[in-house]
Amino acid sequence: MSDRFTTLAAFREALAAAPGPDPDATEGAQARNRQLTKPPGALGRLEDLAIWYAGWRGTDRPRIAAPQVIVFAGNHGVTAQGVSAFPAEVTVQMVANFEAGGAAINQLSTLAGAKMDVYALSLDTPTADFTQAPAMDEAGFADALRTGWDAVDPGADLVIVGEMGIGNTTSASALAHALFGGAAEDWVGRGTGVDAAGLANKTRVVREGVARHGAAGDGLDLLCCLGGRELAAMAGAIARARVLRIPVILDGFICSAAAAALEAACNGALDHAVAGHVSAEAGHETLLRNLDKAPLLALGMRLGEGSGAAVAIHLLRAAVACHSGMSTFEEAGVAGG
Amino acid sequence: MSDRFTTLAAFREALAAAPGPDPDATEGAQARNRQLTKPPGALGRLEDLAIWYAGWRGTDRPRIAAPQVIVFAGNHGVTAQGVSAFPAEVTVQMVANFEAGGAAINQLSTLAGAKMDVYALSLDTPTADFTQAPAMDEAGFADALRTGWDAVDPGADLVIVGEMGIGNTTSASALAHALFGGAAEDWVGRGTGVDAAGLANKTRVVREGVARHGAAGDGLDLLCCLGGRELAAMAGAIARARVLRIPVILDGFICSAAAAALEAACNGALDHAVAGHVSAEAGHETLLRNLDKAPLLALGMRLGEGSGAAVAIHLLRAAVACHSGMSTFEEAGVAGG
Repeated sequence: MSDRFTTLAAFREALAAAPGPDPDATEGAQARNRQLTKPPGALGRLEDLAIWYAGWRGTDRPRIAAPQVIVFAGNHGVTAQGVSAFPAEVTVQMVANFEAGGAAINQLSTLAGAKMDVYALSLDTPTADFTQAPAMDEAGFADALRTGWDAVDPGADLVIVGEMGIGNTTSASALAHALFGGAAEDWVGRGTGVDAAGLANKTRVVREGVARHGAAGDGLDLLCCLGGRELAAMAGAIARARVLRIPVILDGFICSAAAAALEAACNGALDHAVAGHVSAEAGHETLLRNLDKAPLLALGMRLGEGSGAAVAIHLLRAAVACHSGMSTFEEAGVAGG
Repeated sequence: MSDRFTTLAAFREALAAAPGPDPDATEGAQARNRQLTKPPGALGRLEDLAIWYAGWRGTDRPRIAAPQVIVFAGNHGVTAQGVSAFPAEVTVQMVANFEAGGAAINQLSTLAGAKMDVYALSLDTPTADFTQAPAMDEAGFADALRTGWDAVDPGADLVIVGEMGIGNTTSASALAHALFGGAAEDWVGRGTGVDAAGLANKTRVVREGVARHGAAGDGLDLLCCLGGRELAAMAGAIARARVLRIPVILDGFICSAAAAALEAACNGALDHAVAGHVSAEAGHETLLRNLDKAPLLALGMRLGEGSGAAVAIHLLRAAVACHSGMSTFEEAGVAGG
């Protein structure tokens, strides 16, 4: 298995060949969990999380020491269709805000002790308007996937990918609609704040995009036609983390749509991922249900940037801290073991 | 307003006289929130949490630097009725585990940077079996309230109270049933693991306790008759935090039942408290609905010790970190302010 790829075909191969979790570590963690000083199951989902994390990290007593948050920014030709309440310049302004440390994701990364990296993906040349043509050609798509792939620090023990891109809820809605069917209306929400007329327009754009590209091929082909560079980069990073057995916490609707494209192209591609939260964006709950991922948080967030996933880091860390730090019944001299 | 109390009447007076949040700080925080570099409302409940916290702390840009976790342990005469799957000795064993740092709440307190204090409340002399007599007399009840009251560090900026006590879900169920009505069955769950016959017996015990004491008086009188020392101490600590304007995150069913007794005795006693999580224990969801508190987490936890609330510390901290650390539109030069 190569750790780099140059063509889309090689990317598909690397993803298909990615190893699963370590069964010995999983079993060891399950055995340890049964011995900890608490009634069986009393930590609820935290127990499942810790065991899942242990398996992927290959140790029955893991710790989380090096989380990485990677934010990708892109611009979308489909904004020409008037799908966003904000001008495209906000993307580059927010990248500057990320770099200056002023955004929500900066505060959340710092709080979680996570390294944060920002990639601005050719903001001056938006992707094509997907109602007119594929958003990216294959070479451009592979470039964006590779940016994500290469952005993952092999020394990280947890990866969160986030995004910024005016127009990208439209892209994510079209992708989800193409991947999971239903009606365009099921997948279109207000994003960062369009009004009722804007919502109807956005729905039209999603419908047109899916009518044009819905039969393009598998999940990756759909991501190429309907996604944006930041969605492709997120998919690339999630895939690389899968290959490196680094667990991933998925963020909101846009991140989850990019992730869903991977799973559609390669069954099991998201086995190393949990859903950090369900956002307030219409369609996210349905999308997560299609992925069979129960969200850890439901706080009505709808910011993107990786923000919901970054909050969920603390839940995973709490799970791992209990699992790896608690005494066993025998160590503590407590009855019930 | 006195900051100590010697009689139950003085406790009631202190609670009734407790100040509310600072309206200027609340308004200042609301104004700041509108200027932060995100679409309005995009951080969902995190925004409400930050503003709520700011009001109670009296500053529009707060931080959380000194959380305190206080665990109270008590033994219950009602265990003579066979309501628990574990022997009462587990209470003292778990106290030793708390003191040695081996329990879940130790790991979670450390992770949250919280000071953790443990109070074992006369474990050698359980409270009376409430099917036979009031659990505590007024002097003993006032002592337990005072232990909680005095346990709060006035320098803390966030308080979590947790508990350990074999038999205490039975006590909490009886208290909730007495406070909120319904049927005994609505409030009785499996605690740390009784079987179906045990559940029926527990329901009988709760029904008998409420039949005997249900007309004892207000919430505090019911807490005296049906609670235990650790429930009373939790109520005392929550009340002291209210007087000191220190926000509280409520833990699970037992903590919430103790808190509900305060609210029943004094409207607004829990205005400084949020529900950290909804536990897997039957009745907790209903209890929180009665308190009009939406839980921050729903992870299927049912351990007590303050564990669910301790996990929720990170959510409140994330809220405050975003609120106080993010740049405004003007500072960042981002359009949309």
